[in-house]
Amino acid sequence: MATPAEPLGLPFEGSDPDKTLEAYRRVRRESTALVEPLSAEDACVQSMADASPAKWHLAHVTWFFETFVLERSESDFAPYHPAFRELYNSYYNGIGAQYPRPRRGLITRPTLDEVLAYRDDVDHRIERVLGAADEATLATIELGLHHEQQHQELLLMDIKHLLSCNPLHPAYKARGTAVAPRTRHAAHWTRFDGGLMDIGAAGTAFNFDNEGPRHRQWLEPFELCTRVVTNGDYLEFIEDGGYRAPLLWLADGWSTVQTENWAAPEYWLQRDGEWFEFTLHGLERLDPEAPVCHVSHYEADAYAQWAQARLPSEFEWEAAAALAPVRATEPGLHPTANTPSGQLDDLFGAVWQWTKSAYLPYPGFAPAAGAVGEYNGKFMSSQITLRGSACVTPQGHARLSYRNFFYPHQRWAFGGIRLARDAG
Amino acid sequence: MATPAEPLGLPFEGSDPDKTLEAYRRVRRESTALVEPLSAEDACVQSMADASPAKWHLAHVTWFFETFVLERSESDFAPYHPAFRELYNSYYNGIGAQYPRPRRGLITRPTLDEVLAYRDDVDHRIERVLGAADEATLATIELGLHHEQQHQELLLMDIKHLLSCNPLHPAYKARGTAVAPRTRHAAHWTRFDGGLMDIGAAGTAFNFDNEGPRHRQWLEPFELCTRVVTNGDYLEFIEDGGYRAPLLWLADGWSTVQTENWAAPEYWLQRDGEWFEFTLHGLERLDPEAPVCHVSHYEADAYAQWAQARLPSEFEWEAAAALAPVRATEPGLHPTANTPSGQLDDLFGAVWQWTKSAYLPYPGFAPAAGAVGEYNGKFMSSQITLRGSACVTPQGHARLSYRNFFYPHQRWAFGGIRLARDAG
Amino acid sequence: MATPAEPLGLPFEGSDPDKTLEAYRRVRRESTALVEPLSAEDACVQSMADASPAKWHLAHVTWFFETFVLERSESDFAPYHPAFRELYNSYYNGIGAQYPRPRRGLITRPTLDEVLAYRDDVDHRIERVLGAADEATLATIELGLHHEQQHQELLLMDIKHLLSCNPLHPAYKARGTAVAPRTRHAAHWTRFDGGLMDIGAAGTAFNFDNEGPRHRQWLEPFELCTRVVTNGDYLEFIEDGGYRAPLLWLADGWSTVQTENWAAPEYWLQRDGEWFEFTLHGLERLDPEAPVCHVSHYEADAYAQWAQARLPSEFEWEAAAALAPVRATEPGLHPTANTPSGQLDDLFGAVWQWTKSAYLPYPGFAPAAGAVGEYNGKFMSSQITLRGSACVTPQGHARLSYRNFFYPHQRWAFGGIRLARDAG
Amino acid sequence: MATPAEPLGLPFEGSDPDKTLEAYRRVRRESTALVEPLSAEDACVQSMADASPAKWHLAHVTWFFETFVLERSESDFAPYHPAFRELYNSYYNGIGAQYPRPRRGLITRPTLDEVLAYRDDVDHRIERVLGAADEATLATIELGLHHEQQHQELLLMDIKHLLSCNPLHPAYKARGTAVAPRTRHAAHWTRFDGGLMDIGAAGTAFNFDNEGPRHRQWLEPFELCTRVVTNGDYLEFIEDGGYRAPLLWLADGWSTVQTENWAAPEYWLQRDGEWFEFTLHGLERLDPEAPVCHVSHYEADAYAQWAQARLPSEFEWEAAAALAPVRATEPGLHPTANTPSGQLDDLFGAVWQWTKSAYLPYPGFAPAAGAVGEYNGKFMSSQITLRGSACVTPQGHARLSYRNFFYPHQRWAFGGIRLARDAG
Repeated sequence: MATPAEPLGLPFEGSDPDKTLEAYRRVRRESTALVEPLSAEDACVQSMADASPAKWHLAHVTWFFETFVLERSESDFAPYHPAFRELYNSYYNGIGAQYPRPRRGLITRPTLDEVLAYRDDVDHRIERVLGAADEATLATIELGLHHEQQHQELLLMDIKHLLSCNPLHPAYKARGTAVAPRTRHAAHWTRFDGGLMDIGAAGTAFNFDNEGPRHRQWLEPFELCTRVVTNGDYLEFIEDGGYRAPLLWLADGWSTVQTENWAAPEYWLQRDGEWFEFTLHGLERLDPEAPVCHVSHYEADAYAQWAQARLPSEFEWEAAAALAPVRATEPGLHPTANTPSGQLDDLFGAVWQWTKSAYLPYPGFAPAAGAVGEYNGKFMSSQITLRGSACVTPQGHARLSYRNFFYPHQRWAFGGIRLARDAG
Repeated sequence: MATPAEPLGLPFEGSDPDKTLEAYRRVRRESTALVEPLSAEDACVQSMADASPAKWHLAHVTWFFETFVLERSESDFAPYHPAFRELYNSYYNGIGAQYPRPRRGLITRPTLDEVLAYRDDVDHRIERVLGAADEATLATIELGLHHEQQHQELLLMDIKHLLSCNPLHPAYKARGTAVAPRTRHAAHWTRFDGGLMDIGAAGTAFNFDNEGPRHRQWLEPFELCTRVVTNGDYLEFIEDGGYRAPLLWLADGWSTVQTENWAAPEYWLQRDGEWFEFTLHGLERLDPEAPVCHVSHYEADAYAQWAQARLPSEFEWEAAAALAPVRATEPGLHPTANTPSGQLDDLFGAVWQWTKSAYLPYPGFAPAAGAVGEYNGKFMSSQITLRGSACVTPQGHARLSYRNFFYPHQRWAFGGIRLARDAG
Repeated sequence: MATPAEPLGLPFEGSDPDKTLEAYRRVRRESTALVEPLSAEDACVQSMADASPAKWHLAHVTWFFETFVLERSESDFAPYHPAFRELYNSYYNGIGAQYPRPRRGLITRPTLDEVLAYRDDVDHRIERVLGAADEATLATIELGLHHEQQHQELLLMDIKHLLSCNPLHPAYKARGTAVAPRTRHAAHWTRFDGGLMDIGAAGTAFNFDNEGPRHRQWLEPFELCTRVVTNGDYLEFIEDGGYRAPLLWLADGWSTVQTENWAAPEYWLQRDGEWFEFTLHGLERLDPEAPVCHVSHYEADAYAQWAQARLPSEFEWEAAAALAPVRATEPGLHPTANTPSGQLDDLFGAVWQWTKSAYLPYPGFAPAAGAVGEYNGKFMSSQITLRGSACVTPQGHARLSYRNFFYPHQRWAFGGIRLARDAG
Repeated sequence: MATPAEPLGLPFEGSDPDKTLEAYRRVRRESTALVEPLSAEDACVQSMADASPAKWHLAHVTWFFETFVLERSESDFAPYHPAFRELYNSYYNGIGAQYPRPRRGLITRPTLDEVLAYRDDVDHRIERVLGAADEATLATIELGLHHEQQHQELLLMDIKHLLSCNPLHPAYKARGTAVAPRTRHAAHWTRFDGGLMDIGAAGTAFNFDNEGPRHRQWLEPFELCTRVVTNGDYLEFIEDGGYRAPLLWLADGWSTVQTENWAAPEYWLQRDGEWFEFTLHGLERLDPEAPVCHVSHYEADAYAQWAQARLPSEFEWEAAAALAPVRATEPGLHPTANTPSGQLDDLFGAVWQWTKSAYLPYPGFAPAAGAVGEYNGKFMSSQITLRGSACVTPQGHARLSYRNFFYPHQRWAFGGIRLARDAG
């Protein structure tokens, strides 16, 4: 089995303060680097209730360290600012009240500069604490870093959504080099035998509580497509009337298509008969070879129906991916397809892959103890699991057992489609 | 294994025209009997978008026979009324347009009497067709009868909701005899070993497409509570502040509790410190011994958290129920608890039991061919499976593999709670 | 001055018990006659929050007599049913709580028959009280009769809306005779000099509190159109793109046009290029000669802009109508135009005429004392006055000083258009 | 008659290019001065659909000059940025499409600095055009300056609302000196005889189209209170249960009180039994002597009912104010009461005064020709006139005939209460 251990896990272990310090500095630096292309206005505005301002992300992940590490480690702890406890608490009822999520964009003060000062202050104090940190503290810091990485990806999703609302189509960052044209690769099916499979996080490397406990799932034989669905594939679905054919859709999906007037993925737009896609590099001509992205679960499911296939279960995905060779992925701001390897491609680093599985607790699941236990379990309702990782997922954040999740109507994540089918 | 085959399956087989005719007459008669206690007004009004008028139920199930049987069997078929095709089509996009669901209560004409005449007409024509019916037609009639039974239960749910909106608390039907007071039985746990279990409909008896294909699921050892949760149990949860403790709730559930101001199950109300429950028999003093009913999945899950247990998966439920002895249940309009047998009680005939399982297709699931294929598959999104049956489920409709499903916030079904936990 | 005293005022005076009794019997009988063409279902359902069920109207006007007359006159008063006090209180906060208006259609019980029995009971008691009634009681009974007449018109408006939701287009009542085709009459302008005019109810005949006190208004010279706008006139506006020309509309109106997708008056529908209108007689071919009806104030105002005219103020309307000869009008269920008289036509008995005046208190206005004082004053906000009367207004209910009022977006009243303009 | 001509009118006449230039420079400078205390974030965010970002205000008033002056005056006109035509068009359908108002806060780019550069560019071009401007152009520039002054006040209203959403209660600008405590002055009534009064803008000074034409209104004798209602007065209303007494309220008002849970004016908050008010100087202890401010028309009307008085009509207000002596007012960011003069006080410079008059066209009103004609007339529906001016109204913007208007539920304007009553 070829677990993508080294390239995908954080290159440190919780029990080593030096490595933790190094990782802490790196991850924190990566967050602030993400807001460098942004104006203070960009960093403040919230474009929908699902999204948060970039500034809020920067402050919230800092609040996490302040609340779960400093408050428990500093003998003379005093909060940086009493109001931040509420302003930057996302949803931890165990900690106290929260400023309402849909109003996060109204907080123009503290300014971006003041939030960066808050980060500096907490960084200094964390570094001071780190020298004498016990195992539990180191583990919480490690959790905080993974948590911050999640918010790095959310920050890019949210900024993309915000900029997409602007008719000027501003770029988050200009593309360094143009994308070379490529030829479309045929999709192939790979067969897996199934059987009683071990699923979930194993070993001692970091994982979120929702990835365990490791347990058994029985799988019937199945096949996975070797690559993800491309824009070109998806265009065929559109041109075949996919968005006007109710029989292809889940009932909730069809009702959403009609309410929201969906006729293409989020961020696609048509001008004079030609398709464009808004990306973090600005508005670009649609690349038929690139993975389709920013589709909802409803669209992924309808596409699969149309293609006479289905979505994989998250267990099928994990069992198959565990057997695939590790391939390095290049981070980026927009997904590109891997060159075909003859085996499963695009598992990591292109687009998250919607599964057919509801996001539910594994058998034997118990949330982490204490306030951080609100982290994952309480969201296990009405959401769908996505597997793999996307181009915007921070390096070292992805892993085999990782379970991402969104509501089936949501499209602002970098979600794409990998097809599956029952094996004869 | 004690499958509840005979007592729970319809006592006929699709391939026998005589038995089908007998069943047809019985089921159709049971439907009209349900509206006898209703005024024409009761039968017309729709109290919320989730519910439908009783009159609509009577017409829709008739439309089902007209559309899927008569239209395909009568050489000189002409619709009873051209507008009914749209008025009484529930959601079959394959058939054509549908009158909008939330407006079903606006259709005051046809009157109840005219709908009963429509039923008579279709009944005569079905009887005529039945004599020469082929296998496929008989199977569709059988499907139509099961479909009608589903609507019989929905009709009672909907009428209960409608009458509950009336401050006069009118009874659907007076109680024949008072309920004798009972003593509260302790709940016990029964252990099951799990392993690789066969799940889903087997054999040749009727089942809906969503109950198959029969397939294997791996189960870890688990325990089920021998009885369902009672009103008395649930009152302890309320009195312990269950509705004010966010940490017990799924995030979506907690948000619903706050938006809807939930503080007790649907239909409970408190007067001068005492609890009452609106039932189909009118307003009654809350019986602490009776199963708690009309809770949402969110409430069932929060209760289980509070009780340091969890809900069973639908596979655990089915595997355990397959081993339980068959017990006769008395139909009724309000759930009563079984007398304890020392084994699993209340599986059928009291309240549907919320599981923790999302309502999803079984491995290998394919919807039925043709327009009736819209029957089940397209609802497999964001809903939760309930197992067993309730007091209002028609006799002969329940079975081991039956999968009922509702959205996690819905409370107007007769849904209750059975606890589970991992076995040591 | 030709006040339409006799034909338009109720033919009785409050101080004469015999005439009051006669009027009481007549008005009450007219209400029950209105529901004769209705099924019990028709009389129960509420098709939108603005409307009420016919059954509710019958009960509410009865509650008015019970509450404001019997409760104050009977020494041994006991309510007919304690729950009716809340169920049938429309909006009198001075009396107590009210069952929520948008849920009136959910009250299937009492049934229509039970409500008719309630009416009988109150009628008997009112007749008993009437013999010995003092002035104040007689005045309240008279108010109650005018109140009941208002609800007679509302009942027809509400039933029309309800039946219009039914794709079968059922008629409330079949037309006795077909409408003879007519030729379209040219509209003329009549000039009025204005000056300091006396406005508002004068004399001792009955009027609602909002019609007084009589007071002075200064009017500049103006002109009124001799007839109301016809369907044919309005079709020209539609065909000229009136519903797509934002510059013709008030800002709130334009926003409503877009939100509601208005493209014609309420109840108009186009089939194969031809226009039809849903009426209380069922679906009929649009009569270009009949008055346009069921337009909102927004549409009336936009039409006037398009026609390079304006709506009259309510003071202009009243001052001009006071000078017009009295013409008998035929009651009916759908408006027809008067034959031209060379003077102002269609003042009464065809369609209510939207004015440009906000519905506000007259100088010196004071609501009636006591609970009935909630009758009119509290609605003097954001509504527009309509003047005249419609075909469905009960005989004897209309008068010169009558002020009807609706929100500018509402269309289910029989509201039409009379044009005005400044005189050179 | 003491018209506040000089101190309240803009100190220039449209026909003098030099004075227009001077006024142009001054008004434009005042706008940019208003955003100096703001961060880029403050200037970008929109806190509700009724409000607009400060940056948007700065750009929109500039767009007005670009569109209505430069585009018509420059022979080689080219838009500064093609997208601005849509982005900064508020509601002029005659000009073209508009970016949706509720989404104005999403436009993070152009940044504040880029908008300031846009202003500079247009300023240079306007100055170049001004030298050779004809009468019509000068008049449009004058209109543009009055328009910009309106937006200066809106900008302060909108910023106040935005900052009020921040639990940190940030000040727009610190107070220079503390407010000296004052004693509460008794309110007196002044009598006016009424009669046939001339109302509306007269003479050649600038006015908006909605202030004319000058015309006659008949007024009955009335009395006005010499001062506006204070916080102390209003507290008595609150403490007497004003917000819980339905009979004091207009029906729409009472329904708003319940939906919005109003219990005090906007920006009031109670801590430990003491009242505070959020102001542009931050959170301050409530000053019982200061005028009550940020009440809706509904609250103003209910207060007047409670005080056994009523609101004045806008004609009464204007007729009375025309007789009052001119008093200088001090501009400021929060209203303070004038010292009593024995005559009508607080007419200008403290709070706008809600009238009882609907905002409707004067007799003979015709909108200005061309696209600027969309300026006022189309809003004459469902709004209420306020008269006078507020502390935040720019100097030189107020005048006797000025008609401000808001919907009756809106509270973010600096709206207060002056009482009136009928004279015996």
